[in-house]
Amino acid sequence: MYYHDKRLQYPVVVEKPDPAFARMLQQAIGGVEGEIRVCMQYFFQAWGNRAPNTKYRDMLLHTATEEIGHIEMLATAVALNLDKAPASLQETGAADSIVGAVMGGERPRHMIEGLIHKNLLSSGLAAMPMDSDGVPFNMSHIYASGNIAADMYSNVAAESTGRVLAVRLYNAAHDPGMKDMLHYMIARDTMHQQQWLAVLEELGGPSANLPIPNSFPQEQEDQENNYNFYATAADGTVPEGRWTSGSTIDGRGEFTVFPNRPLGEEPVLGPARTDSGAQGQQIG
Amino acid sequence: MYYHDKRLQYPVVVEKPDPAFARMLQQAIGGVEGEIRVCMQYFFQAWGNRAPNTKYRDMLLHTATEEIGHIEMLATAVALNLDKAPASLQETGAADSIVGAVMGGERPRHMIEGLIHKNLLSSGLAAMPMDSDGVPFNMSHIYASGNIAADMYSNVAAESTGRVLAVRLYNAAHDPGMKDMLHYMIARDTMHQQQWLAVLEELGGPSANLPIPNSFPQEQEDQENNYNFYATAADGTVPEGRWTSGSTIDGRGEFTVFPNRPLGEEPVLGPARTDSGAQGQQIG
Amino acid sequence: MYYHDKRLQYPVVVEKPDPAFARMLQQAIGGVEGEIRVCMQYFFQAWGNRAPNTKYRDMLLHTATEEIGHIEMLATAVALNLDKAPASLQETGAADSIVGAVMGGERPRHMIEGLIHKNLLSSGLAAMPMDSDGVPFNMSHIYASGNIAADMYSNVAAESTGRVLAVRLYNAAHDPGMKDMLHYMIARDTMHQQQWLAVLEELGGPSANLPIPNSFPQEQEDQENNYNFYATAADGTVPEGRWTSGSTIDGRGEFTVFPNRPLGEEPVLGPARTDSGAQGQQIG
Amino acid sequence: MYYHDKRLQYPVVVEKPDPAFARMLQQAIGGVEGEIRVCMQYFFQAWGNRAPNTKYRDMLLHTATEEIGHIEMLATAVALNLDKAPASLQETGAADSIVGAVMGGERPRHMIEGLIHKNLLSSGLAAMPMDSDGVPFNMSHIYASGNIAADMYSNVAAESTGRVLAVRLYNAAHDPGMKDMLHYMIARDTMHQQQWLAVLEELGGPSANLPIPNSFPQEQEDQENNYNFYATAADGTVPEGRWTSGSTIDGRGEFTVFPNRPLGEEPVLGPARTDSGAQGQQIG
Amino acid sequence: MYYHDKRLQYPVVVEKPDPAFARMLQQAIGGVEGEIRVCMQYFFQAWGNRAPNTKYRDMLLHTATEEIGHIEMLATAVALNLDKAPASLQETGAADSIVGAVMGGERPRHMIEGLIHKNLLSSGLAAMPMDSDGVPFNMSHIYASGNIAADMYSNVAAESTGRVLAVRLYNAAHDPGMKDMLHYMIARDTMHQQQWLAVLEELGGPSANLPIPNSFPQEQEDQENNYNFYATAADGTVPEGRWTSGSTIDGRGEFTVFPNRPLGEEPVLGPARTDSGAQGQQIG
Amino acid sequence: MYYHDKRLQYPVVVEKPDPAFARMLQQAIGGVEGEIRVCMQYFFQAWGNRAPNTKYRDMLLHTATEEIGHIEMLATAVALNLDKAPASLQETGAADSIVGAVMGGERPRHMIEGLIHKNLLSSGLAAMPMDSDGVPFNMSHIYASGNIAADMYSNVAAESTGRVLAVRLYNAAHDPGMKDMLHYMIARDTMHQQQWLAVLEELGGPSANLPIPNSFPQEQEDQENNYNFYATAADGTVPEGRWTSGSTIDGRGEFTVFPNRPLGEEPVLGPARTDSGAQGQQIG
Repeated sequence: MYYHDKRLQYPVVVEKPDPAFARMLQQAIGGVEGEIRVCMQYFFQAWGNRAPNTKYRDMLLHTATEEIGHIEMLATAVALNLDKAPASLQETGAADSIVGAVMGGERPRHMIEGLIHKNLLSSGLAAMPMDSDGVPFNMSHIYASGNIAADMYSNVAAESTGRVLAVRLYNAAHDPGMKDMLHYMIARDTMHQQQWLAVLEELGGPSANLPIPNSFPQEQEDQENNYNFYATAADGTVPEGRWTSGSTIDGRGEFTVFPNRPLGEEPVLGPARTDSGAQGQQIG
Repeated sequence: MYYHDKRLQYPVVVEKPDPAFARMLQQAIGGVEGEIRVCMQYFFQAWGNRAPNTKYRDMLLHTATEEIGHIEMLATAVALNLDKAPASLQETGAADSIVGAVMGGERPRHMIEGLIHKNLLSSGLAAMPMDSDGVPFNMSHIYASGNIAADMYSNVAAESTGRVLAVRLYNAAHDPGMKDMLHYMIARDTMHQQQWLAVLEELGGPSANLPIPNSFPQEQEDQENNYNFYATAADGTVPEGRWTSGSTIDGRGEFTVFPNRPLGEEPVLGPARTDSGAQGQQIG
Repeated sequence: MYYHDKRLQYPVVVEKPDPAFARMLQQAIGGVEGEIRVCMQYFFQAWGNRAPNTKYRDMLLHTATEEIGHIEMLATAVALNLDKAPASLQETGAADSIVGAVMGGERPRHMIEGLIHKNLLSSGLAAMPMDSDGVPFNMSHIYASGNIAADMYSNVAAESTGRVLAVRLYNAAHDPGMKDMLHYMIARDTMHQQQWLAVLEELGGPSANLPIPNSFPQEQEDQENNYNFYATAADGTVPEGRWTSGSTIDGRGEFTVFPNRPLGEEPVLGPARTDSGAQGQQIG
Repeated sequence: MYYHDKRLQYPVVVEKPDPAFARMLQQAIGGVEGEIRVCMQYFFQAWGNRAPNTKYRDMLLHTATEEIGHIEMLATAVALNLDKAPASLQETGAADSIVGAVMGGERPRHMIEGLIHKNLLSSGLAAMPMDSDGVPFNMSHIYASGNIAADMYSNVAAESTGRVLAVRLYNAAHDPGMKDMLHYMIARDTMHQQQWLAVLEELGGPSANLPIPNSFPQEQEDQENNYNFYATAADGTVPEGRWTSGSTIDGRGEFTVFPNRPLGEEPVLGPARTDSGAQGQQIG
Repeated sequence: MYYHDKRLQYPVVVEKPDPAFARMLQQAIGGVEGEIRVCMQYFFQAWGNRAPNTKYRDMLLHTATEEIGHIEMLATAVALNLDKAPASLQETGAADSIVGAVMGGERPRHMIEGLIHKNLLSSGLAAMPMDSDGVPFNMSHIYASGNIAADMYSNVAAESTGRVLAVRLYNAAHDPGMKDMLHYMIARDTMHQQQWLAVLEELGGPSANLPIPNSFPQEQEDQENNYNFYATAADGTVPEGRWTSGSTIDGRGEFTVFPNRPLGEEPVLGPARTDSGAQGQQIG
Repeated sequence: MYYHDKRLQYPVVVEKPDPAFARMLQQAIGGVEGEIRVCMQYFFQAWGNRAPNTKYRDMLLHTATEEIGHIEMLATAVALNLDKAPASLQETGAADSIVGAVMGGERPRHMIEGLIHKNLLSSGLAAMPMDSDGVPFNMSHIYASGNIAADMYSNVAAESTGRVLAVRLYNAAHDPGMKDMLHYMIARDTMHQQQWLAVLEELGGPSANLPIPNSFPQEQEDQENNYNFYATAADGTVPEGRWTSGSTIDGRGEFTVFPNRPLGEEPVLGPARTDSGAQGQQIG
């Protein structure tokens, strides 16, 4: 179960509200690389964790809980960018001159409408659980496979794309407050990349964990097709690299190259059933 | 551009059609761990690849092209499981006794209807680009970030969950033909896990690539929060592990623990705008 | 069954076409607060209504049918805003100077393209069943629970967010014709809010209907946790209000405060099954 | 920001695992009436709350935080129903005889496969953020309008459909542990219905809040169409009720009946533009 | 605008309720071949119709309006199949013995739960706007292109897949009442196929309408690649047919065969931008 | 199975990068009229084709394979429009002055941000499988019905809306390279419209194929309602046309007009079940 503190994880200050940047920040909330995704992913991995002990369940809960605070920070940043900040910013009129133009029906409407449609019309100038194009987050992006190694790689991928996004937002940001918030979030993503890789190391690293899942007796997989690169160029050329020769990463084989060709035959499904709603010509 | 051979990549034989297994196979076609996902992911990573040379673009095309053949194999397997197989199986009547029951309106309808609704009603007993619950594949699952290392980790994650799924299907399969097909696909997933990890190694491994993206000057990220584990348990307990002490995975720091607490203040958005459609009490 | 009249429910006139406003109007068609939603919601509530008599089914059909006309009005308004209006507006060239700029490939393209992408590319300058960000309406938003009181509250919520949206559009509108159309729609939303609350009153009001569903014997619910506010602040503070003390709204209890704490234990799922595709380390 | 306790909010015990019931419980996790929805809805309402003070923001955070614990309880219940419970249940073999049948490829496969497809294939017998049909939760269901009264009615609707769902699950449950968990959740839904209605009362009740939003000058809405029931039956019959006569709920008018008829004319969009991709016959 | 009659378009009688068939009928309501789709498609085509006169707008409204009544019939059929029918069927107990088993928590639960999950849990045994797998209808399936010929072909396709579905349901139906309802719906689909083809004929048929859109000067399209079949088999074989030789359907050319080969070069996107969040190795 | 050639199907050259046009091109990749759709549609139609011979399966594979190359061309075009083209364009700085403005945080941000949000933030200035509003492609748009005639009409519809889209893009394009690419794609759409109509002709044309499916004995459909136009105007007017009189398109009947009226009665579902979570008042 959970507790909250109404203060933020880290300060969120916006000196000069910028509706266009608000919309960009939405990607970090409800984009597939965003914080709702990692938060819910770590929670579901924790809640479904099956293992001899509860160590990883426990650890995942720590970080999942941290991530709620990141969504909260970003939601606050979106709201502040969409309107005048309270108190000290009240006088600048920066936001008023822009957002006010939309609300009041004045120009230059074209400067922002495309950027904040649902933030304006649906939520009254607040954050929404959607990405920067207004597409709502879809929970099918929560990867929790029941396999701890697959999950850790999914988490590394999530924090890698997440940090790439945070860097892009940092590069696009003007506001010192936003730069400060993002330089904190970028740091947390650094840690989380390390953290999931640390689990993989603790579990024994590549040699102990690959191929994933390692609980499947590898002798049952096709021994002739598990370490060869399939070359599918029509002209037979092969892109040489670490993956075409030498020892495999798991140390269990040698990379080779297989000039691809069909190993099966043309499939023949035969005529359709009389009662299947097919066209008569298909029934023959 | 592309060419095809109407023969299959690998033989797909179904001795005893099983509509329930057909529905399970749908997960490997249109599930988030399935083959449409990896096929399209590798294609979009290739087509958008920006680099000093086209080496990785080239290599990605080889494997993306291979994956089309995997969707094709699975689609064939679904169709064969949903009806009588051609030729040699024509006489067994195995499928007819089951699927025929549905088509003809006979019992035991309850044995299968829940399993093949759209495969029966929408496609006439063929595969569809959806998962085992009938949810269509959504292309937001194609991760192509523009960062080669993030993409490789996404690919490792995809092939790991993909192999986990293939193993589960193998364990659930009865039919020798299906076991054979899956033991081949499991092997290809093994190779593809190796392949993407090989790219990461060729790029210099963790020390050269972390944190991702490595093109962001790390001194610009928050130096006090990039290598500490945030402990969020209300009682202050900490789950010790590789991630709480010792050198970090990238070799650039030491793991420490931070007993989490708010570093910011309570956000105050202030009253709503007069013209924002808020309730009067919010405007104050 | 249904009939139509090709005339509109209420006049829709656009003096000066405005593609940006067209895109905003899309929210009222295919947004979650929009007219497709209420129309279909009332229809499905009517069609599935189970009751001793057909009174509410009957009444719902009246209003569902009215709502089709609202979608029609908005669709007409979008089309008129996207191109030159017929007849009297034909000469102004107002739309031509804007939309024409896009179609003809001239500038200032940036003024509109972001706003009308699919309305331009997919529908040829007409309305589409999507929201202001181009996200298609998803029918999961049709709430028809089979419980008349829950449905009425869902309807009040729908008409409340609907009127909030209509007011925001009214505030953003320039065109007198659009102002006129919206001042009519705002009025209809007023009535519909009243109408669903009137049903709740006719059913006996809060005391007769709460808690919803009232057909569940309340003595079977947890008597110690049904009227206490859970305070989850880590520092134990409580937000005092109507919900922390005094008689409850249904008149069946007294509000109290419960400083939240775990009442259960740490869940232990135990090791994974051998054949479940988990990592070996999870099987133990 | 947030803290966690690894213990559950309330005990979750499953005496006899039941995969079919696990799938039903998914509706309470990822269904539109489920706990992810209310949790995220209250969070986004809090984070975007604009008001003269932070009272309601504060209160919403308390309950949003409580709801995370409900998702956690249900996720635990799903996992326990999908496999053998730990310790004391280890010997019963109840779950093994069913789930094992699937994993091991034995019959009676038809008893469960339709019910646990993705829970089996994607998550390794754990909960997922999807509904009972395997459809992932879509965040567009988070209603946070920026209007406190509209939000409260949305919340009453959510907790009403939520309690209806919990009652249906209670009625379908066999297991005493599941009955116990649900009788607790039903109680919490009772409180939350009261809580949001208490806010509406504190804000002044119907007369002070209707029509929503009350910040729009009501004299600007169409005064002839804001309190009349539109009768759309082709034969002119009218369903009499509280909504056809008498004082309106907000006390500002009298209900009347309007036999519906078109107030506008047939819309004429005119010929298509030459360069709009229309058929030549449409250009005329 | 619209009117209703509370009577059904055609009688809907269910002699023996069948929850499994109810779920199959859902495909005809909310499936991509279903009635919501055609209803909304014809409405949006009508509302956005641009032409020298309103003839086709008018005609489309007639049929769109008819289709509302089809959704209504199917929704009624689903409700009747999900529970005991009123009056004369009250005594059979047919439905009670099945649905009652679920509601009351008795076996044979496995016979139906997979089939009626959301119909039971979300709607209280009524129809929902979703398909037979519980996937909600998504309005992106409303094809209204702004081109009358493209729309007519989309309509023919919709009514063709719709009639295929209705035939499959008819073949699967047991109940005489359901057979009667479906034999009516199949007939209406026949008419609607004719109707849209009649529009194409009235517009001048293939020679006048092809290629669609016919308003694009055909001399501006690539004259060397508009009537040749691209053969993409790696071995150069060509599937001979009406499409490889002879006069084209529009009478404007001759079919030929083009053995496919690349006409362009390998694309080179070059290094990534320094500030684009790419990996350093990509920047070079 | 499949092969690739790393060269493009047709040259893709962008002289002057234009991020706004890049976003428009996205509609041709991931829009419902786009190339992913036709590619996957033809593949699934081929893979599930049931017929006495494999002729149409074979032919469909040729064209499906061709379409992969179209997605590739468009993805390349998007990438080139989003950044500076390599080599010869490197010096123009055209793209740098625009995209660089965003990346570097300079103005005129409003000129592009609305147009390239996810292309910038998620993919690093590359194409994504989504439409021009950033909505990801949803695979439910793959129509493969199991009926060859229904499929061919679906394909004609797809290529018709596809060519309409391509023409709109051509009309909006400035760049000679883009015009050249699109004039090629428009030509291929012309051929594909012909190709699917050629199949219908080879199958015997309308008289042999209608109504679809032609395998259902037409005498089992309602003979009184299969060739009459339902007139639903409340005032009884009828839109005369090819569909109201004369021989039907399939030559099997005469068109007539039916002034619509209810043929059924008001449905009565009766009271709700006691245990169904309905409100008590519904149980009666």
